[in-house]
Amino acid sequence: MNPESSVSDLGERAVIRRIRARVPPPPAWVAAGIGDDAAVIVPERNRSEVVTTDVLVEGVHFDRSYVPPEAIGSKALAVNLSDLAAMGAEPRVALLSLILPGSLPVRDLDAIVAGLLKLAERYGVALVGGNIARSPGPLVVDVTAIGSIKPRRVMLRRGAAPGDGLYVSGAIGAARAGFLALVAGAGDGDEGLAGCRERFLTPDPRVRLGLLLGRNAVASACVDLSDGLADAVRQLTTASGVGAIVSAEDIPVPQAAARWFAEREGLDPVDAALRGGEDYELLFTVPRRRRRALEAILRSADGLPCTRIGTVTASRALLLRRAGADADLPAGFTHFR
Amino acid sequence: MNPESSVSDLGERAVIRRIRARVPPPPAWVAAGIGDDAAVIVPERNRSEVVTTDVLVEGVHFDRSYVPPEAIGSKALAVNLSDLAAMGAEPRVALLSLILPGSLPVRDLDAIVAGLLKLAERYGVALVGGNIARSPGPLVVDVTAIGSIKPRRVMLRRGAAPGDGLYVSGAIGAARAGFLALVAGAGDGDEGLAGCRERFLTPDPRVRLGLLLGRNAVASACVDLSDGLADAVRQLTTASGVGAIVSAEDIPVPQAAARWFAEREGLDPVDAALRGGEDYELLFTVPRRRRRALEAILRSADGLPCTRIGTVTASRALLLRRAGADADLPAGFTHFR
Repeated sequence: MNPESSVSDLGERAVIRRIRARVPPPPAWVAAGIGDDAAVIVPERNRSEVVTTDVLVEGVHFDRSYVPPEAIGSKALAVNLSDLAAMGAEPRVALLSLILPGSLPVRDLDAIVAGLLKLAERYGVALVGGNIARSPGPLVVDVTAIGSIKPRRVMLRRGAAPGDGLYVSGAIGAARAGFLALVAGAGDGDEGLAGCRERFLTPDPRVRLGLLLGRNAVASACVDLSDGLADAVRQLTTASGVGAIVSAEDIPVPQAAARWFAEREGLDPVDAALRGGEDYELLFTVPRRRRRALEAILRSADGLPCTRIGTVTASRALLLRRAGADADLPAGFTHFR
Repeated sequence: MNPESSVSDLGERAVIRRIRARVPPPPAWVAAGIGDDAAVIVPERNRSEVVTTDVLVEGVHFDRSYVPPEAIGSKALAVNLSDLAAMGAEPRVALLSLILPGSLPVRDLDAIVAGLLKLAERYGVALVGGNIARSPGPLVVDVTAIGSIKPRRVMLRRGAAPGDGLYVSGAIGAARAGFLALVAGAGDGDEGLAGCRERFLTPDPRVRLGLLLGRNAVASACVDLSDGLADAVRQLTTASGVGAIVSAEDIPVPQAAARWFAEREGLDPVDAALRGGEDYELLFTVPRRRRRALEAILRSADGLPCTRIGTVTASRALLLRRAGADADLPAGFTHFR
């Protein structure tokens, strides 16, 4: 087939065959994978199934002019694995629902699938099914992921208690700075900024950290940072019926991101980082008695840094402490307004 | 809130709250439902999990000018439950991924959710999570459904053997005739045609029949009729490495549908019924030794008729026998061409 051909030259079944040919053989606990009415999984005993779904929509979450197709496929799975990581679950299977404009080049379809499968292989996730439909508008990549966990090891959003430390993994604001640099076509010669672009394009979900936090019962509550740190703090504390004080100076904003916010966008770096979405990091709370256990985990978490950024409070207020003064924590972003 | 307001007046979180307020409390085996990063299900022992996903896209699968919003929500779940039924699985949970144009009236959003929840209640399905995103184009309703089954009771597409009888549930061609009548604005005074319209708008998935066929090990293979009977016969026989002879006279085309095809569309009724998609019936094969067991099942299947329409053959050919002469079975339809 001509590599310049588009999806409308293929037909739905040929698209499925094309994807199926690239999927590695499933593990033994997949009793039926791609190609039947549904996939069949034989769960282990004494395990809970954890299920999540998240979508990337062209024109809303990405623009094909600056996001390569591999990144679209990779990220569509990553955002789901990040949700499973926030529960402490081990990812096992994924379903891929593709809604394809007829004009999509077949090579882009292949690259989307390749990006997804590369990340799936990295975390031992089996693609077991999905669905193909035509789109009269944008490209839509909707993924459902299922993981498993021992029932008593699940990390929910509720569970944080006054006095718990508030921690984040990795770096905050990197994805937003990377997105802005990408749109501006900047950052090729700047290693820090290139790292931010990478974090926006192909976020690496914190699967291992989530597993360790859950298995070792270190975190009293956990959430991932899809809509920004400020929003995540609000989600977790609201679900737990508590408040928090966040220390602005302790938020780990990468230098390249802080510079971009201040110099190119005229934004306050801390505020921009707090509001910036798509940092697929974990926000979690740790009771005082589990801090040693956290330190032990971090030594085996592949060098991923975790930073204490604040404390859970009994008062419901959400405060940002900066140079000794407290202000209200800003809001995150929302999709419809 | 003004009932004329649209989704862009609400924001993503308000949409989630609106849906959540309408969802009944989940059963005890749902350890975490809507509102966390992912849903947590505690599976039973000795059960397989069966997962499927299917989508409805505005402008491809429905047009809001003639499909009411309740029907969109109901059908989006029905097509998934139909896939689970074709595996013999008992449906348990669903995830709802909504991609919403900002201009969608809030009352339509509520009606979509109401239609989905009504069908969910009927079959004991718990809505445990999902995702909301903005659409720059069409309304997209993507559902993932998970069911369970004893591992040895799963019905796959492969498994049909020469000599097995070929059966379909319900009526064939009803959905296509109903769709055509709906677009033409016809059928209000015609009970048969109104039934066809109903079958197109709010198909009732064959959940109970699928469960009975699986539990009693009656069917050697099974598939649902999403893309038409001819296509389903092709899918099932290809997966099983066999062929089939279908008897045209035995295909249960409702009289109102046959009349519509012949008189209004100038189509051959059998050919139109064979090619028409969206009859969410089950096609299944039954070995000779299980025919009595099938009869026993049909007596307890709530009056849903099943009709023998042909026989599985060792030759790979797919033949349509009509007035004693054999011709090639026509193809089904496909989404991209």
